[in-house]
Amino acid sequence: MHEFEIIDKYFNWQNTDIIVGVGDDCAIVALEPQQNLVSTTDTLISGVHFPENTKAANIAYKSLAVNLSDLAAMGATPKWFSLGLMLPEVDQNWLAEFSASLKLLADEFGITLIGGDTTKGNMSITIHALGVLPKNSGLLRSGAKVGDGIFVSNNLGDAALAWQLMQNKQTVPTALLNAFNRPTPQVKLGLALRDIATSCIDISDGLLADFGHIIKQSQVGARIYFDQLPLSPQVKNARDSCLSLAGGDDYQLCWTMPMSAQDTKQLAQYKVTKIGVITQEMGLKVIGTNTKNCQPYRHF
Amino acid sequence: MHEFEIIDKYFNWQNTDIIVGVGDDCAIVALEPQQNLVSTTDTLISGVHFPENTKAANIAYKSLAVNLSDLAAMGATPKWFSLGLMLPEVDQNWLAEFSASLKLLADEFGITLIGGDTTKGNMSITIHALGVLPKNSGLLRSGAKVGDGIFVSNNLGDAALAWQLMQNKQTVPTALLNAFNRPTPQVKLGLALRDIATSCIDISDGLLADFGHIIKQSQVGARIYFDQLPLSPQVKNARDSCLSLAGGDDYQLCWTMPMSAQDTKQLAQYKVTKIGVITQEMGLKVIGTNTKNCQPYRHF
Repeated sequence: MHEFEIIDKYFNWQNTDIIVGVGDDCAIVALEPQQNLVSTTDTLISGVHFPENTKAANIAYKSLAVNLSDLAAMGATPKWFSLGLMLPEVDQNWLAEFSASLKLLADEFGITLIGGDTTKGNMSITIHALGVLPKNSGLLRSGAKVGDGIFVSNNLGDAALAWQLMQNKQTVPTALLNAFNRPTPQVKLGLALRDIATSCIDISDGLLADFGHIIKQSQVGARIYFDQLPLSPQVKNARDSCLSLAGGDDYQLCWTMPMSAQDTKQLAQYKVTKIGVITQEMGLKVIGTNTKNCQPYRHF
Repeated sequence: MHEFEIIDKYFNWQNTDIIVGVGDDCAIVALEPQQNLVSTTDTLISGVHFPENTKAANIAYKSLAVNLSDLAAMGATPKWFSLGLMLPEVDQNWLAEFSASLKLLADEFGITLIGGDTTKGNMSITIHALGVLPKNSGLLRSGAKVGDGIFVSNNLGDAALAWQLMQNKQTVPTALLNAFNRPTPQVKLGLALRDIATSCIDISDGLLADFGHIIKQSQVGARIYFDQLPLSPQVKNARDSCLSLAGGDDYQLCWTMPMSAQDTKQLAQYKVTKIGVITQEMGLKVIGTNTKNCQPYRHF
């Protein structure tokens, strides 16, 4: 089965809002005149970003979810994506499971596959996702203001604890495994934050590393209160503060906004926790625990 | 040196026509109201698409050039690209050479880096390129008409002969090596063809495989005359018709247009060769050689 047949059989989705989709040299799509284009890309590698025995359905889900999470962090609406699939061999069962799972998540978030490339090699998945934003909008990392509160969605550290248990060959509770394999992209929350937040990022490399980009790019400092971090019972019991502070793979949003904004109606349906405050004094201070031994998650 | 430092040091290019470039969760760019967006992606793998001892400058060049070639085949104007870089280790000399070469080619074609991802693994480069087209324009594979002539740019088979000589550990003449390592993306020719050609493709997998897409998607047949193919003296001397018909890696354009269009002023500055004709009779006939033993280039 060669490349063209793989694309035709597994990845030739039709969608009426696309001028030219899969099957030509390039795809052609149209934006509304009042929209800007938003672009992001992420690669997942077998054995690095997920264990080698991960199911095809979970690999597909996570590959797209991490890119949707980046769009969410901008407050963007997902639109189109391309798939770079590197596979050691053509396994039709694997491809059928992978493409079905990818399509399910894509449909849920209204994003459509418009192109890709399949190559032979160690398994890795590179997705490039495109979204749209109304002109003059978008959640950047650079807008945090002194006095703003710092907020995160849902819980932190579940995926990192799952990964730690996997590495130690221990049983991983289902809730943690789901947090690791199937993080829910916070796209709706991103849209709700678009006119409220002063800065936003998604937590992929760990809270401290990612929030560090916000204070650096906003030229402010921050205090984060460890005892305010939203933790699941399992992460709380693990008594390892590095899981929630530096674990990574959370795919929750972390953002800043005026303290008063926490009570707005738009955020009523989300689990939102205030974890700190933006300060004039530069640097990031974590109150209530020692972060010295936390190793941030890094690709190199 | 971790990912953020790599991006900051080697890939943080500034460009005024970008709203948000490298350094946030996503990039934000603006299109003109009368433009559509054009999207393509291609992965090159060390040892598969280029020999492992290829210079960083040549790897960078070719990785971007093959994507520019896809934009050229649509008649699109290159605008922005993302870089997915998988590297076994951080080698600063390699990165400096790679990024300088990438920037040089990008500047030549007016395309700007807006994002990317670096990961650890066997060396591979995935580029996702974006371009623009005026609304209601674009060179598709599906428009070839019975009676149209079939045309190609420059010469065919040089890169395939270079690859064959490399595999056989023979000396590769400089002209062939350049065709293999540094194919010139035919972006200007693509723009010139936009209002003339009825269909167009770029030749990456070999003339027969790629032109096969045009006749399939246009629902027509074709005759190609082998003795009319434009060949360099080296390819002619090699006496292997598969080099030009199925060799791949040419990155020349192959298109159809009315016979009379060959003499239009817009094409005067290009080397354009008529190699056949579109027929009502279905199927692709090659006159003047036997193609039975040609192995098309395939990724799997």
